[in-house]
Amino acid sequence: MWPLSRSLRPKQLLQLNGETTLLQQTVARVCQKIAPSNLIIVTHEGHYFEVKGQLAEQYPEALSGVIAEPFAKNTLPAVVLAVNKIYQKDPNAIIGVFASDHAIKNEKAFLDAWSSAEVAAEKGYLTLLGIKPTEPATGYGYIRPRNNLDLVGAKYPVFEVDAFVEKPDLSTAKSYLTSGYLWNSGMFVFRASVFIEMLERYQPQLAHKMSMINDDNISELYEDLPSISIDYGLAEKADRVAVVPVDMSWSDLGSWESIFQQHQKNNENNIIRGDVVTTDTKNSLLWSETGVLTALGVDNLVVISTPDATLICDRSRAEDVKLIVSQVQDRYPHMAETHLTVQRPWGAYSVLETGENFKIKNIIVKPHQKLSLQLHNHRSEHWVVVSGTATVTNGDKVFKLDINESTYIHAGIKHRLENQEDSNLVIIEVQTGACLDESDIIRFEDIYKRI
Amino acid sequence: MWPLSRSLRPKQLLQLNGETTLLQQTVARVCQKIAPSNLIIVTHEGHYFEVKGQLAEQYPEALSGVIAEPFAKNTLPAVVLAVNKIYQKDPNAIIGVFASDHAIKNEKAFLDAWSSAEVAAEKGYLTLLGIKPTEPATGYGYIRPRNNLDLVGAKYPVFEVDAFVEKPDLSTAKSYLTSGYLWNSGMFVFRASVFIEMLERYQPQLAHKMSMINDDNISELYEDLPSISIDYGLAEKADRVAVVPVDMSWSDLGSWESIFQQHQKNNENNIIRGDVVTTDTKNSLLWSETGVLTALGVDNLVVISTPDATLICDRSRAEDVKLIVSQVQDRYPHMAETHLTVQRPWGAYSVLETGENFKIKNIIVKPHQKLSLQLHNHRSEHWVVVSGTATVTNGDKVFKLDINESTYIHAGIKHRLENQEDSNLVIIEVQTGACLDESDIIRFEDIYKRI
Repeated sequence: MWPLSRSLRPKQLLQLNGETTLLQQTVARVCQKIAPSNLIIVTHEGHYFEVKGQLAEQYPEALSGVIAEPFAKNTLPAVVLAVNKIYQKDPNAIIGVFASDHAIKNEKAFLDAWSSAEVAAEKGYLTLLGIKPTEPATGYGYIRPRNNLDLVGAKYPVFEVDAFVEKPDLSTAKSYLTSGYLWNSGMFVFRASVFIEMLERYQPQLAHKMSMINDDNISELYEDLPSISIDYGLAEKADRVAVVPVDMSWSDLGSWESIFQQHQKNNENNIIRGDVVTTDTKNSLLWSETGVLTALGVDNLVVISTPDATLICDRSRAEDVKLIVSQVQDRYPHMAETHLTVQRPWGAYSVLETGENFKIKNIIVKPHQKLSLQLHNHRSEHWVVVSGTATVTNGDKVFKLDINESTYIHAGIKHRLENQEDSNLVIIEVQTGACLDESDIIRFEDIYKRI
Repeated sequence: MWPLSRSLRPKQLLQLNGETTLLQQTVARVCQKIAPSNLIIVTHEGHYFEVKGQLAEQYPEALSGVIAEPFAKNTLPAVVLAVNKIYQKDPNAIIGVFASDHAIKNEKAFLDAWSSAEVAAEKGYLTLLGIKPTEPATGYGYIRPRNNLDLVGAKYPVFEVDAFVEKPDLSTAKSYLTSGYLWNSGMFVFRASVFIEMLERYQPQLAHKMSMINDDNISELYEDLPSISIDYGLAEKADRVAVVPVDMSWSDLGSWESIFQQHQKNNENNIIRGDVVTTDTKNSLLWSETGVLTALGVDNLVVISTPDATLICDRSRAEDVKLIVSQVQDRYPHMAETHLTVQRPWGAYSVLETGENFKIKNIIVKPHQKLSLQLHNHRSEHWVVVSGTATVTNGDKVFKLDINESTYIHAGIKHRLENQEDSNLVIIEVQTGACLDESDIIRFEDIYKRI
């Protein structure tokens, strides 16, 4: 989803198909069935505060269930982290695992399939949701079901899994369309104790290492864990594995083309987002995050315009955006990684301009948040409050700074920015100095434990 | 040339086909034949200081020859302004009139055609340069020549003009290609006294009104002049009108397609400008003024990306960009008029960010220039020097502000920003207040006479 998503801002955190993010949609969907306080979200620590921020808008009671992984180790260690936590409370708990970056239009079908999978999970099966394919996709793994388990109480039929099948070529994928094969959605339902037994049997080392992890040692122990998926590590090895075939208008939103397919089109069969002006333009996805995007006489294009990068792509090539991203990575490494706007636990900052010996940022501090007590060796900072009231520590002094007031932080001086009010604080920061690197920061105190 | 050119920044002031602007290219071309001190440039007063700034880099001795029109009145009044000035010094002067927004690749042919036109001008002819057509263009007026004047001393043959012909339809334009018709380039050569005689004969009122114009009354008298072209007002009416056919690889750069045609292409037949990354992209003009522009699997596109507007256009529709611009004008009026960067006599400013109750500008003051002594009723300003040294008037105080120093100008306080050094001064200005309109300015003193 580049240039809208970047490696440091993945697609589940974006509003790709509506007014809420994919993460928020997933949470809302899941909480139709379970209590928010039973929700556990596992995320990379780089997204920890933003995940919490998004969740706070929906279900504050779920905030304590957010777990940060210090390293990305594929799906199995992430799932084990959550399952261990649940298992300690209730070994018989029936657990569902859902990716946070999928779109599902038919929520009733999803909920019914989930309930049906729970019936199988009660009987000791590691149960998947299998998507009935709607096209000969070559980008997904497939599941081949065999005999119907004929489970009483399951709304949807549940089948034993005969085999997991690698991503096929196009002609194979076409044959799968009519022979009962299912897309592997990566959604699982199982009993906590069954999962733990399988883990101990098929991944005993991982089970052992992870049983020793607690809040204090996770940073050290996690680094040495293997990167392994729940599919490869457990599902493909276990005996009692089941699948619920379901048609729920599912999409993994894996490309701009899938976004195009999911959205409502206008009369010219275009999808328009942001300030867009078109003439004789059709069948296109035109998405502007900045400025006015204009299109004249074009057809079948994807255009994504962001403050620092624009993508123009024939829709038929949307799957190949990775080719462009890898070139961008070579030539402009930061462009593949971050946006000009960067989320922080206390709010966000946007780089407005970078010049020789200066950088300008717009900094938003959320209510009752504060940045770390810090100093920079090489840069000085001028702060101008343009909205709200800042509580500033500048060397030995602590004082309030109202709208339209400013202060100057000399290089080498300890300082802190805090918002004690109930509304956002917005300041403009002009940094000056020969070295304006984000890494020039020494933190002394931090309420987000970033020291 | 939107979005690169805007109504307040026309294409002659832009670097469209090289390291210099079209104006600078025109000046350099003309000064191969005449002394820079004999050059007169007529421009709208809105571009006066920028024209002078561009000229100062080339021929400082030509600066006194820049004349500002307070209103745009088509070509004839502009030419009369210049001719009157020359006529007072030398009624027999041979004058050439050249548009500043054309590209000419074959300068030798241009100079030879000009010299040949001068031979005809000496004999009392109002003489045009007529471009031998290379395609059936429907966007130009044509000239039909008749008998060769067989002028001695003219390198190129010079013909009497039989008729001026309106813009033709496509089939007519095709027939013109092979029957000796020429494009009317709008370039004229004539003797000052001949021009004045023609003017008095065919436009006596204009001649009379303009003979009374001087530096002091031009603002009043100019407004009532008719808008009239030199073609319609004189050339089409006069008897002794001649034309020099010439093939000089001329282009009026009237559309992005003509820019595409004029430039050197790379191996994929693309023209790339700025930070651009392509994969499987060909026959396209990809121009980025901001951020990274990426294109995947597209063909035959024009893409122009600027900080506040992006154009994507099929090359075959480049002539229709006006359709988009008129839509943009309706929906986002300022986008058709100005850039985020605005030229001023003392330098330039760029709007970096506009938010609720604040606006941030990057202000560049050229060496030894100063802004007016001014005040704003509704906004306060914070200035941070990020390069150079400012001389600041803030109320009663005048002081120096070095790099990394700042000052605060309260609303209602007279202030002035000046650069007394030999290198550029760069400041970041954070404006705060409920009204941040450019029109909130009261000027008390201004070295550029803008009061």
